[in-house]
Formats: sequence, C-alpha cells, structure tokens
Amino acid sequence: MTGSVDRRLAELGIVLPQPPVAAANYVPFVRVGALVFISGQTPRVDGKVTFIGKVARDVALADANAAARVCALNLLAQLRVACDGDLDRVVRCVRLTGYVNSDPDFAAQPQVVNGASDLMTQVFGERGRHARTAVSAGSLPSGATVEVEGIFEIVT
Amino acid sequence: MTGSVDRRLAELGIVLPQPPVAAANYVPFVRVGALVFISGQTPRVDGKVTFIGKVARDVALADANAAARVCALNLLAQLRVACDGDLDRVVRCVRLTGYVNSDPDFAAQPQVVNGASDLMTQVFGERGRHARTAVSAGSLPSGATVEVEGIFEIVT
Amino acid sequence: MTGSVDRRLAELGIVLPQPPVAAANYVPFVRVGALVFISGQTPRVDGKVTFIGKVARDVALADANAAARVCALNLLAQLRVACDGDLDRVVRCVRLTGYVNSDPDFAAQPQVVNGASDLMTQVFGERGRHARTAVSAGSLPSGATVEVEGIFEIVT
Repeated sequence: MTGSVDRRLAELGIVLPQPPVAAANYVPFVRVGALVFISGQTPRVDGKVTFIGKVARDVALADANAAARVCALNLLAQLRVACDGDLDRVVRCVRLTGYVNSDPDFAAQPQVVNGASDLMTQVFGERGRHARTAVSAGSLPSGATVEVEGIFEIVT
Repeated sequence: MTGSVDRRLAELGIVLPQPPVAAANYVPFVRVGALVFISGQTPRVDGKVTFIGKVARDVALADANAAARVCALNLLAQLRVACDGDLDRVVRCVRLTGYVNSDPDFAAQPQVVNGASDLMTQVFGERGRHARTAVSAGSLPSGATVEVEGIFEIVT
Repeated sequence: MTGSVDRRLAELGIVLPQPPVAAANYVPFVRVGALVFISGQTPRVDGKVTFIGKVARDVALADANAAARVCALNLLAQLRVACDGDLDRVVRCVRLTGYVNSDPDFAAQPQVVNGASDLMTQVFGERGRHARTAVSAGSLPSGATVEVEGIFEIVT
C-alpha cells in the first residue's frame, strides 16, 4: 500500500534519489519534536554536483532553476528518511532558504529558488506552501550553483 | 479598543504598511505551534523596492540602516496578519537574520541591520530583544540593499 | 561536582571563553521552549576578532578552519549561559549555519566549517551531530573570516 504523497510523486514521474550522504562532519537532518531541520542540499546526483558555476556568468537562469529543483529532490529524499519512509506524515513545508551562486549584480534569486518551491507545492499541495528566504551566497561548496535548506513539520 | 503594541506604534508615529505579497511561489509566513517563521523581507513599499544597490559602492551606511528598518516594518506587517491582527500576542522576537548587499570588503553589517533590530526594541521593548545573525549576501533579489527574515514566538 | 560535559571539556584541554557580548542591538541567545537560538558568532577572543580576511586571498584554509573552531567555542560559551551553567542539559546540537568570508570562487566551505562541527562532536559525542548549512557570505562583520550560528535543544 502506497501513501498519497508517494502516489503524487508517481503521477509527477518523480523517483526520489538516494538521500545524499553528508559531505563533511554533520548529519543530513535532525528532528526536534515536530520539526525536522534538513542540512543544506546542493544539486548532487549520485554523489556528483550536477550544476556548477555562477548564474549569469556560467549558468543560465533556466538551468539554475533546474538545479534548485534537484536540491529540493534531495531535501525530499532526506525528509522521507526523517519520516521513516512515510511522506504522508509531512504536515507542512515550514521554510526554505535558498542560496544562489551568482554574479555580484544578479537580482533574480526568486526565479532560481522557485525551482525548489514549485516542487514542494507540486508534491504537497497546500501543505507545500512555505516561508522562504532567497539570497545569493558569495560562493558555494564544490562550486554548486544553488544550495537549499529546509525546515518541515511532521507528525511525530 | 487598541492593544498596547498598537498604542506604542502610534506613539512612535508608525503606520504599518500593507503586508507585501510574496514575490514568487511561497507564502509570507508559516506558523508552527508558537513559532512564526516570516519570509525574507526586502525594503519594498507599495510593491516597489525603495533601496537598491550595494552598501558603500551605491548606498550610504545611513541609508542602508534605513532600508533595514523598512524590512522590519514589513516583518511587523506580516506578523500582525500571523497574529490575526493582535500584536499583543507577540511573546518574543526570537531571531532576525539580516542579509546586506555590499561591497566584498564591507565590514559594518551590524550597523546596517541595527535598523531592523532597533525597531523591534522600540516597538516591543524587552520582548523585542532577539538573537541575530548579520552577514553580507553576494547579492539580493531586485538588487535590494537589505533583506531581513524573522522568527517570532506568539501566544497561540 | 562537575558535569560530564565539563569533564569532557577538561579532557580536551578546553577552557570556554567569557561569552562575547553582542556587537550591536541584539542579545546572544533566545530560548523558546526546548530550543535555544544563538546569535551568529565570529572568532572573537577578548573582544577582538582573531581571524580577519577572506579565505584563499588573505587566510589559509587551515586557519579558516581554526577560526570556525573559535566561533564554536563562543557558541558553547553562550550555550552554557543559556543552560544556567549546566551543559549536561544539552540534548542536541540541532543545526549550525556557517558563513565563510571567501573569494568568489572558493569551494571548500565544508572543510572550513568542519572546525565548528568537529568541536561539537568532540564535546557532545552523538548529541553533537547536527544538521548544517555551509555557504560563503559576501563579506562578514569586522572582516571576520567565519561566522557560525547555532540552534540547540536543551532540557528545560
């Protein structure tokens, strides 16, 4: 028997990746009561960062948006582990913080980070609507184009 | 009958703006239990960012401080909605994170973000004293000079 | 009678510093229920930032890692106050966010921020394992090389 979020993922043609292992001395998520704090996710696929470089200078806006979506898929993969495999336990995507690797005069961070936000609302509907902060970083680990962290509320 | 925070706002000559609508696919705030997570606010007034450019290069420190105050007014406008119009329900300003759009060698982020912090203590007194992180971003949405996000504790 | 975390600090040869006073109009931490939100800490020692400048351009990676450790010592000093002096009340280091002051093409933020993360696991063991986000800032207060903020869960 599959849950309703799993069915929705299937409808969208999404197969969640293996949750990336932490790149250094930390863990992918920590749960405190109903809150799950998930570590910043880069667009890694099978251990390899798939979008590298700065938006505008090296990477087109549309590609940066696609990179943010990959970050969000990694968030969901971590979240599924935090929910012991049952994404129907997700009550709310509380907040995403999106960091964009960009030129110093780039101004379209919201359009980039929408790649992550759109996925959340596609998958979770109303429960996927979240508070958000989108900024540019000075630079990002491994030269990644985007990094997204998240806080989720789940049924404990 | 007006609450004590509303009276304090009137004493300070502050009329809170209309809460800015989210600039992309997210919501202005999410409440989880007693915590309200408010999305990053830029110094938008009537839908238009009022302070644009990098501190030092384009914008003077005093103007950047004023920009941070506008961000904080927008936080309060969102918070009032989160409190169903009653700011007396605010228990504490828990944390502000201020992102400054600056030259790469700018070092006075605290003085900029004080524009937001000072407003919180003026309005809420002891309850307005918060934890804080102030950093420069690489750049900010719409070229805004400052962006501030906040977490508040409220009576549920 | 000393607690087990205090004994562990002694074993590691660590004497926690005086908790730095806030550099501007905010407080070092706010507690909400079991969560302690600690303000961003720079590598200040006795009121003076000890590591200044950008990684790669001005500061070597190993020194930046050492700077992150000093930030983490300051976090622990604040946390001890939040625990009324008893670090055995710490249930979990929930999340660290590390901001690195670097060149725009720096990509080794995780190795820098490990200076903070390693300290947490040395001091708290399994309870020190945390979620994390590591990014570069555009620049940092007083030109500090690193700034780290933290969220901890404690016994109330």
